[in-house]
Amino acid sequence: MRYVVGIDIGGTNIVAGTVAEDGSEVLGLVSEPTLAEQGAEGVLSRIMKLARASMAAARGKEIAGLGIGSPGPLDTTTGVVLLTPNLGWVNFPLRDRVAGVLGMPATLDNDANCAIFGEWWRGAARGASHVVGLTIGTGIGGGIVLAGRVYRGKSDIAGEIGHMTIDLNGRRCKCGNYGCLEAYASGPAIAARAIEGIEAGADSSLPRYVNGDLARITAQIVYEAAHDGDEYALEVVHDTAKFLGAGVANVVNIFNPEVVVICGGVTLAGDKLFLPLRSEVKRRAFKPAVEACRIVPGELTGTAGVYGAAAVFMQRTWGAV
Amino acid sequence: MRYVVGIDIGGTNIVAGTVAEDGSEVLGLVSEPTLAEQGAEGVLSRIMKLARASMAAARGKEIAGLGIGSPGPLDTTTGVVLLTPNLGWVNFPLRDRVAGVLGMPATLDNDANCAIFGEWWRGAARGASHVVGLTIGTGIGGGIVLAGRVYRGKSDIAGEIGHMTIDLNGRRCKCGNYGCLEAYASGPAIAARAIEGIEAGADSSLPRYVNGDLARITAQIVYEAAHDGDEYALEVVHDTAKFLGAGVANVVNIFNPEVVVICGGVTLAGDKLFLPLRSEVKRRAFKPAVEACRIVPGELTGTAGVYGAAAVFMQRTWGAV
Repeated sequence: MRYVVGIDIGGTNIVAGTVAEDGSEVLGLVSEPTLAEQGAEGVLSRIMKLARASMAAARGKEIAGLGIGSPGPLDTTTGVVLLTPNLGWVNFPLRDRVAGVLGMPATLDNDANCAIFGEWWRGAARGASHVVGLTIGTGIGGGIVLAGRVYRGKSDIAGEIGHMTIDLNGRRCKCGNYGCLEAYASGPAIAARAIEGIEAGADSSLPRYVNGDLARITAQIVYEAAHDGDEYALEVVHDTAKFLGAGVANVVNIFNPEVVVICGGVTLAGDKLFLPLRSEVKRRAFKPAVEACRIVPGELTGTAGVYGAAAVFMQRTWGAV
Repeated sequence: MRYVVGIDIGGTNIVAGTVAEDGSEVLGLVSEPTLAEQGAEGVLSRIMKLARASMAAARGKEIAGLGIGSPGPLDTTTGVVLLTPNLGWVNFPLRDRVAGVLGMPATLDNDANCAIFGEWWRGAARGASHVVGLTIGTGIGGGIVLAGRVYRGKSDIAGEIGHMTIDLNGRRCKCGNYGCLEAYASGPAIAARAIEGIEAGADSSLPRYVNGDLARITAQIVYEAAHDGDEYALEVVHDTAKFLGAGVANVVNIFNPEVVVICGGVTLAGDKLFLPLRSEVKRRAFKPAVEACRIVPGELTGTAGVYGAAAVFMQRTWGAV
């Protein structure tokens, strides 16, 4: 049995693990804060440290290489990250830097592609031929897996589902566009909508969760308050379901997928999110497409990107996973 | 050289032609009004008549079968049209009815899929591996051609790009949803927006094109008035470009295509539509995805569906086109 190190570089944390080629186990799962504000070389050194720590924990196993999942845009052929404002990388040859230092072959793919590929390989979308997924966190990433392969489009940009316009003249998005799904349903957007409502006079217990400091409200606190019975927080979750539902309905009408898998912190909201989300999709999308599709939370919480990054390496190197 | 009859069933016209397997010529191109209001069997008899007329014009050629493009939803495996309100078909075994009467094998696919497949085979998207297209007429259909194959999704519904929500709480669409691209940019939607503006007091020469009977304004008349210099008609065309641009930007961000091909009457508006459309896409979508993509009108005016329907037959029967 061969093993591959999967590295998932997120805006908040970097996670690494050493994955068996049959996906049956992950050894040496380790994680550290990304600390992007400390500079690009610092991020790179933490990646190396985590990869080494994971391989050390898997000592005695045959390790064939590394799969890296990174925010993009990036070029999967050359292994170069073109531009990641958050991480400070511009035309950064991430794959070859990592491969060179560690003396092993490596592959590079988009982080959201990796997460959804991981869910297809070993998670909630196992066995499905038409899979579209969203990763909801600081932003909203997307991944498309058709016939067991990541669909990357002409130049590795495909899958930017979070930057689909769902509201033509709507909220400004960080990408410069107006009305992107991400501007409504990412973690920070959920918090921003909650805060706006409270500032506009909504009656809610949310301020008590943050000692009155509204700026500290996060999406996770909104879910917590909703679970505790706060009506306003529940309304914010329902609105999130409505926005996500419009986006997922678009995906359902365009791809007619078997599975839409939704990953990330937003899944903590559980049925309070998924029930109204499925209703909204049913209301908006074509019936036969809705009937063909399961809309489910990811199963590989925190490790989908590690599994997927390793699986990308395996598929590129050995032709199959 | 073998030939295949391509039949394109539209809401307004049915077109048939006998297409050479290398796509070099179409013989016996014939057309008749669909006259759906005269009933489902009447439509079927017109299809038979046109197919026979086209084959008669191609007498002496080896005709291998028929490819049929029809509004859907439909099942390409069983050849059954599930439901087409406009044509009055419910679970109608169109493929086998046509094949049985004409004594030849036939295939069935969605009309928009056929049109975009035709544009990929012999038209504006020749040679491209990542193609997404829109057919804009009474409705807005969509087709996705990846690596030279129509992408149909899990149950043949994929490609419903016209029913992508671009305005969450926007105009009601015939499909029941709100804010679909089709509700803004189909032919009837363009006319409806023009009429609404005039009724609200817009200064325009459009009423003179229809002797004051606003109900007779069509999208084509709007383009004509825009070409003639009517400022308000030009504004309606610009708004159309803005709506279409939001939809095409979504397609560009999701698929990262090489070509987005736009077919149908709307292309009559020419650069007055395509220039602001490309600007809007540039404004909304990711730069590297925009740079990778041509946004072009279809080249096979009136025959894309015939070429594509025949090509679907060829690919299903012979494995390649």
